[in-house]
Amino acid sequence: MQHKLKIGMIGAGRIGKIHAENLMRLPQVIVKSVSDVEVDAIREWAAGLGIGIVTKDYREILSDPEIEAVFICSSTHAHTQLIAEAAAAKKHIFCEKPISFDLEESKKAVKAAEDAGVKLQIGFNRRFDHNFKKVREVVREGIIGDPHIIKITSRDPEPPLREYLRHSGGIFIDMAIHDFDMARYLCGSEVEEVYVAGASLIDPVFGEFGDIDTAVTTLKFANGAIGVIDNSRKAAYGYDQRVEVFGSKGSVVVQNDYPNTAEILTSTGVYRDKPLYFFLERYKDAYVEETVRFVESILSGSDVPVNGYDGLQAERIAHAARKSMLEKRPVSLSEIP
Amino acid sequence: MQHKLKIGMIGAGRIGKIHAENLMRLPQVIVKSVSDVEVDAIREWAAGLGIGIVTKDYREILSDPEIEAVFICSSTHAHTQLIAEAAAAKKHIFCEKPISFDLEESKKAVKAAEDAGVKLQIGFNRRFDHNFKKVREVVREGIIGDPHIIKITSRDPEPPLREYLRHSGGIFIDMAIHDFDMARYLCGSEVEEVYVAGASLIDPVFGEFGDIDTAVTTLKFANGAIGVIDNSRKAAYGYDQRVEVFGSKGSVVVQNDYPNTAEILTSTGVYRDKPLYFFLERYKDAYVEETVRFVESILSGSDVPVNGYDGLQAERIAHAARKSMLEKRPVSLSEIP
Amino acid sequence: MQHKLKIGMIGAGRIGKIHAENLMRLPQVIVKSVSDVEVDAIREWAAGLGIGIVTKDYREILSDPEIEAVFICSSTHAHTQLIAEAAAAKKHIFCEKPISFDLEESKKAVKAAEDAGVKLQIGFNRRFDHNFKKVREVVREGIIGDPHIIKITSRDPEPPLREYLRHSGGIFIDMAIHDFDMARYLCGSEVEEVYVAGASLIDPVFGEFGDIDTAVTTLKFANGAIGVIDNSRKAAYGYDQRVEVFGSKGSVVVQNDYPNTAEILTSTGVYRDKPLYFFLERYKDAYVEETVRFVESILSGSDVPVNGYDGLQAERIAHAARKSMLEKRPVSLSEIP
Amino acid sequence: MQHKLKIGMIGAGRIGKIHAENLMRLPQVIVKSVSDVEVDAIREWAAGLGIGIVTKDYREILSDPEIEAVFICSSTHAHTQLIAEAAAAKKHIFCEKPISFDLEESKKAVKAAEDAGVKLQIGFNRRFDHNFKKVREVVREGIIGDPHIIKITSRDPEPPLREYLRHSGGIFIDMAIHDFDMARYLCGSEVEEVYVAGASLIDPVFGEFGDIDTAVTTLKFANGAIGVIDNSRKAAYGYDQRVEVFGSKGSVVVQNDYPNTAEILTSTGVYRDKPLYFFLERYKDAYVEETVRFVESILSGSDVPVNGYDGLQAERIAHAARKSMLEKRPVSLSEIP
Repeated sequence: MQHKLKIGMIGAGRIGKIHAENLMRLPQVIVKSVSDVEVDAIREWAAGLGIGIVTKDYREILSDPEIEAVFICSSTHAHTQLIAEAAAAKKHIFCEKPISFDLEESKKAVKAAEDAGVKLQIGFNRRFDHNFKKVREVVREGIIGDPHIIKITSRDPEPPLREYLRHSGGIFIDMAIHDFDMARYLCGSEVEEVYVAGASLIDPVFGEFGDIDTAVTTLKFANGAIGVIDNSRKAAYGYDQRVEVFGSKGSVVVQNDYPNTAEILTSTGVYRDKPLYFFLERYKDAYVEETVRFVESILSGSDVPVNGYDGLQAERIAHAARKSMLEKRPVSLSEIP
Repeated sequence: MQHKLKIGMIGAGRIGKIHAENLMRLPQVIVKSVSDVEVDAIREWAAGLGIGIVTKDYREILSDPEIEAVFICSSTHAHTQLIAEAAAAKKHIFCEKPISFDLEESKKAVKAAEDAGVKLQIGFNRRFDHNFKKVREVVREGIIGDPHIIKITSRDPEPPLREYLRHSGGIFIDMAIHDFDMARYLCGSEVEEVYVAGASLIDPVFGEFGDIDTAVTTLKFANGAIGVIDNSRKAAYGYDQRVEVFGSKGSVVVQNDYPNTAEILTSTGVYRDKPLYFFLERYKDAYVEETVRFVESILSGSDVPVNGYDGLQAERIAHAARKSMLEKRPVSLSEIP
Repeated sequence: MQHKLKIGMIGAGRIGKIHAENLMRLPQVIVKSVSDVEVDAIREWAAGLGIGIVTKDYREILSDPEIEAVFICSSTHAHTQLIAEAAAAKKHIFCEKPISFDLEESKKAVKAAEDAGVKLQIGFNRRFDHNFKKVREVVREGIIGDPHIIKITSRDPEPPLREYLRHSGGIFIDMAIHDFDMARYLCGSEVEEVYVAGASLIDPVFGEFGDIDTAVTTLKFANGAIGVIDNSRKAAYGYDQRVEVFGSKGSVVVQNDYPNTAEILTSTGVYRDKPLYFFLERYKDAYVEETVRFVESILSGSDVPVNGYDGLQAERIAHAARKSMLEKRPVSLSEIP
Repeated sequence: MQHKLKIGMIGAGRIGKIHAENLMRLPQVIVKSVSDVEVDAIREWAAGLGIGIVTKDYREILSDPEIEAVFICSSTHAHTQLIAEAAAAKKHIFCEKPISFDLEESKKAVKAAEDAGVKLQIGFNRRFDHNFKKVREVVREGIIGDPHIIKITSRDPEPPLREYLRHSGGIFIDMAIHDFDMARYLCGSEVEEVYVAGASLIDPVFGEFGDIDTAVTTLKFANGAIGVIDNSRKAAYGYDQRVEVFGSKGSVVVQNDYPNTAEILTSTGVYRDKPLYFFLERYKDAYVEETVRFVESILSGSDVPVNGYDGLQAERIAHAARKSMLEKRPVSLSEIP
């Protein structure tokens, strides 16, 4: 009889639920328990999924000797404390991004996991997207030669609610952090300098919180390549997630995914449906694959595909970007300790 | 506690396994038992999936009062006998295409299900494909006006093995039957006449069995539209499944699905990966949806989305196509009783 | 000083004017004279272009010893007479399609040119289209192996006027003749059998003249390939001219041309402009190239790229198609003498 | 008899020849004379085209009272002197970009034309490209709302020769100046700040001349929009000229032009030809249209579509970009007097 990995979920909001549902479909996994501060809101969902233990207190999960791994999907503020406790309890950890809003705290959390000898995977789900994986593969195989220019388009269909924005940490740590990780991943080199041209063009609420809603961020990489990311909090046509890597021997470009390939031609023009609406639709399979890869790395003892260091580096870039936005100048990563 | 539909699988070859795995993921379903003539070959698979009962004798399934529905995924030769017995046992039936190679037998099977008052769904999975559903929706809504020309491209990446071909029933009942159903589905009208221009261009084995490997089939519909299907048993670049409906107000066209959207531009040209390889890749989600829809129709008491009549009509067209191929003339559907 | 080829235009309707304007731009050509039955209607146009001689009587052109070649762009009824006279006058001939509505007359005209030793090029302009030339090149180089299926989509944006239709000769000799030539050109083999499924779906005027407006024509080629052409006299979205050749090693597919590549994404979908409107827009460059190639073949003494035999073969297929439509059966080309 | 505009060409290198050939095809224009420092090298070309006067001395053109307009296509160093003399001679002027390498000199030249009351059009040919015109039209009509992000990709297929580079003025004034004009044109607003991240990644020769070969330039516009241009002197797959404008209500994106639409599918993948090779191929029709528009503006007395002010603004941005590159900081346009 195959060994089944028993997993506990800490936090069952939108993203926690997705991870739980994906994990339940893996034959080598049992989602044994789930905790959430609003425990009553998740009871029916958990029962339907067949999760045996539903609790308000995540310590119940951490103290369960059968549990080998936890998914930390709570609000960001609780991440580092939970990582520290989970590491102390010798549980492997999957933690959503960002690790925290404070780089020093994030470092301590990563170190805690390292010292405890447990795996720590950060939820940069986009690395597992079919399009971006292909781009990385093409770059890695040298098909386009040395990377010269990395371009990332990353726009959300709708800004978050005002209440979320108040505590989001700002566009860089909340949203663009995915793109900073993607830039490192695609380029295969570290970012050394960041420059931001940003503006609040969509909604004055961003300015109210000292935040912006539109940003063009330039990155300089150690290997000489230049990156550029354009972010918007609101694309009228839906989620826009495209990437291009241009190199000495050519270029590789990926487009958005669409719900179908239908083109409708009429007397007034040619039409097609909008791209897939948002991350739940676009990254459905990527969410599955990141959990599969996490589970595999535990079962096989191999490295996780996105580790704590990756989480820290993306956070450093996000902090440099914010500094650049505030000080209106290029900021070296060396300024972010 | 929600009622769970208990289902038995009759036949667990490639397609039977897919249906079983998809059904297992539906919270409202339990796959209780599975039968196969080569029972030893499926034991491990069934255990891994948690199917409790594994038997060589499908009668064990049919006599189980808890079982409400069966999936008939045996070889085609056994379909009608199994339908008759399942209907007598008052089980709802999902049956793979074609119902049989003999139209009279197929009719009897459909009638048996009707008389017994059980649902009978035929496995025309392509109706549930995201692209073809969109085409049907556009046609139904009148966006392209009255259909004038229906074009279907349907090519396999590889011909079946010689042993399969010997008993396949020929290209029309084995392969193009999907396209005949698709043509009716998209056009929303019945086929009245069939003309085939066929040839054996890929492998002499087809000629050996009185079969062809390449066919262009013209259809005339009751609503005046004209259809054309081009089939090949071997497309070097993989599965080719495209459709176009042209009407009085415009046209709707769908292309193949690809594993990613990456375009690679180098000094020698622009490249992208081939389309998804074959039906398991291309119709993965369509297989899921056809089982969901079957289960829903049982649980809600609604009609199945593809019924026995649909199965018979597609078979009639297939028989007319074969007759046209042999007699080298257009054949009216009225010649096929 | 370079020798300049002096050319006379016989007929200056829409297509004659295009040829004259294209010829005027060739440095090695002088358009010396033009004749038209409605001579007053073309005087201003001819003067603006700098054509010195404008006449009602084409014999003035044929009797001019300086004229080396003529373009016959009159109404189809006059073609064969004009070819015979031009051949007798030892002028090289470019003649619009079809040569005539009567195969015997067409043959005589082709023979007259042959006997006189003058070049005769038929106006199958589509062979010079950038897309179709590429398809032919790919087929000729064997990149897709042996051709198995040739697919041609050919739809006009608007049906001709009633008065034109009355004398058009019907959809096959008037419109689909281009596609019959294209099928031979792309396949590199002769058509042996034709089957038509046709209907009058757009306008009852077609039925009134014993004509149809919608046709799906199946072709069998000597090399075993099967062709299929779908024609419509009215595509709501404009001119639709696509081609695909599928072979043992792959496929080559070309799409329509568009006025620009712009995609507009908004909250209601993704839009782009319609394809280029009609033949003047789509085949602008192809018209230029066919005249360049005609002039070159005269100046260099090489063969014309589309000769009288090509004209006759396309007409034979058109006659077979009409016979198939009337007799509702596949018609062998051997039935068309 | 229609008045014919007599034009003289000053400079008949590659671009001068193209303008002359395009002008010769306009019925309302006579190219009367051409001057070039290497006069012997152009005699045959001029004769073939029917240009009557070929001279080494451009003053012969300027002193010809019949000449109404001149095309200045000499080397950049001579532009301002030629503009001043042509203006003094009351000739309308079409001048290639950039006006000069020195902003003060450029201003004087523009003023000279203004004071003389002659038209001055600058050769920003890309504004007349079918794709970019469509983008501008979509933006102007408000279809995508207020512009938020303008993205321009502009990459050459091959770097210029070393000798050219030595006197090119650097990537910004030589190459990216087209993109700076395009950014203003598409956004409909003025640039206020420029930041450059640049590198020499292709060939050390660029560094030798204090130049770069790869640049990502961020622009801030008066209307709040942010622009980003990525330039490379060498794209292995050919000329890359794409644009996107993203706004509050949607986005408009244009792709490269290709020599044909053929897709070739084989067992190893899907292939198509590379984009059109370079500016002569890509902007063939745009070059025609810019000369047509210049001629029209003279004949009708209307404004030229790209005037001296447009030339100066693009130069200011180019100087700001160079300053940003050298000083590694965002540079305000107000720093460039």
